Amino acid sequence: MITQAIDEHTITDAALDQMSTTKDARLKEILDSAVRHLHAFAREVDLKPEEWLEGIKFLTAVGHWCSEYRQEFILLSDTLGLSALVDLMNDRRISDGGTTSSLLGPFYRTDAPQYELGQFIGTHEHGGTEICIYGRITDVDGHAVPNAKIEIWQTDEEGVYDLQKNRPEDMDMRGVYHADAEGNYCIRTLRPLGYLIPLDGPVGDMIRAQGRHGFRPAHVHFMIGAPGHRELVTALYMGNDDHIDSDTVFGVRGPLITETKQDPSSPFPNLPSVRFDYTLGRAEGMSGRVGADPSQITSKAVSH
Amino acid sequence: MITQAIDEHTITDAALDQMSTTKDARLKEILDSAVRHLHAFAREVDLKPEEWLEGIKFLTAVGHWCSEYRQEFILLSDTLGLSALVDLMNDRRISDGGTTSSLLGPFYRTDAPQYELGQFIGTHEHGGTEICIYGRITDVDGHAVPNAKIEIWQTDEEGVYDLQKNRPEDMDMRGVYHADAEGNYCIRTLRPLGYLIPLDGPVGDMIRAQGRHGFRPAHVHFMIGAPGHRELVTALYMGNDDHIDSDTVFGVRGPLITETKQDPSSPFPNLPSVRFDYTLGRAEGMSGRVGADPSQITSKAVSH
Repeated sequence: MITQAIDEHTITDAALDQMSTTKDARLKEILDSAVRHLHAFAREVDLKPEEWLEGIKFLTAVGHWCSEYRQEFILLSDTLGLSALVDLMNDRRISDGGTTSSLLGPFYRTDAPQYELGQFIGTHEHGGTEICIYGRITDVDGHAVPNAKIEIWQTDEEGVYDLQKNRPEDMDMRGVYHADAEGNYCIRTLRPLGYLIPLDGPVGDMIRAQGRHGFRPAHVHFMIGAPGHRELVTALYMGNDDHIDSDTVFGVRGPLITETKQDPSSPFPNLPSVRFDYTLGRAEGMSGRVGADPSQITSKAVSH
Repeated sequence: MITQAIDEHTITDAALDQMSTTKDARLKEILDSAVRHLHAFAREVDLKPEEWLEGIKFLTAVGHWCSEYRQEFILLSDTLGLSALVDLMNDRRISDGGTTSSLLGPFYRTDAPQYELGQFIGTHEHGGTEICIYGRITDVDGHAVPNAKIEIWQTDEEGVYDLQKNRPEDMDMRGVYHADAEGNYCIRTLRPLGYLIPLDGPVGDMIRAQGRHGFRPAHVHFMIGAPGHRELVTALYMGNDDHIDSDTVFGVRGPLITETKQDPSSPFPNLPSVRFDYTLGRAEGMSGRVGADPSQITSKAVSH
């Protein structure tokens, strides 16, 4: 394809032709598909120069909002449903009976405090409703997974993560527990509240222009790992939340919806309790970790 | 679509459903199409979480390279053929017999020096080959357009734009001329050389990974405007350039390819000359200006 003969109908082939020398076969496959869909999109909407320019400005702004503590491109991917799609495709690919995964979200950090089983997760007195979450961790054959590492993080009684209100060194409502030798775990925490994704950047402008509420339903994040098993990144969602059916980032999965109840079998029968048993997949699978994982992109945890 | 029921096959509908409240109909049309194609792309290549993350990192880097003097997202759009596609669709939309447009490129600036017809465009002595470009500017009915403003910019004898080598205040090889009352114009300049697009950023990494040469064929940019006529943004390409058939940003158009020759009719018959007559379209059309136009995005002209 010689470029001087390019017209509206042949420009895509011309671009693909010029990219045909890409050495890495997978990179070529991905970029070829990206260019074909990018061009098909522009054709489908008959994109005008001034609209193209608005798009350039938007992407530039998204890039400029990305920092050590904020990943606006992941937020964009999350709100457009792309992160969930990649997550769901990965779940299908590695499907082996492990517990359904869910988006990591933007508030994970690696250095949370250690707690004993049954300890309360907050670092100070809290209002709100104290609850118990307990259960058992097994492998896909039903055998107990002993001593799994369980990382948990969530909003407080105001619906806010520590990283949203505190200095990074003031951690709260996040912690690391270890299941016992029979795979049992038990934590005391607060009933989480739903929260707004960060709306002060260009993604927030988009969410408002789309008339979306911007809320995620209340949930408690879990990351569970044990040697020989696939790391599980997931979350338990509170079924009574107003936004349980309209998660702005499409992270809710049916099997992960739960609710507290009075439970005489709970290790803390006086507290509203959730029993949730986890199944860890086989180690040969992929991690399934999709979503705003700051640790792989920024040098610190994400806040805004 | 309730989000808890989402699976790999319904996530796209769920996202579109949540975007259905977008007030602006055109914005909705564009974002709907963008999401459908984004998801179709991810499905087509069965995008893996680690590949998704590489994409996030790449876009973040592109955003971080954008500055007052650099628009890396436009460079990305240019190298993927998107800018050319938008340009070509716009040409079709406004087609009225005006001269074919071409990408503005990243090196336009608004404050170039004024010259008289026939004056040399450089601000100092140059090596290289001096040439003459002359011709007539008419409207689509063949009537002369008097006194059109003609902005011209190009590389020097080393294939470099002033903005690439100088301080921004040291302009060279760019100037503003005005056609005479009969629509005639004549400039003296250097034979331009082809040049490499800026390859020191993430787009450069992509170009190398794709095994592309990264060159644009030699050309002289023209922006021509007159009251009552559509502003024309275009360029004349040198047909003997090694990369005339493989422009990295797909800006070459057949009708814009020319070459110097000995021309007894030239106002400077001793110089290799190009005669090129321009036709200005009707004012009601759109500008057709697509490409790295820094003035609309950054506060100053672009260099790197």
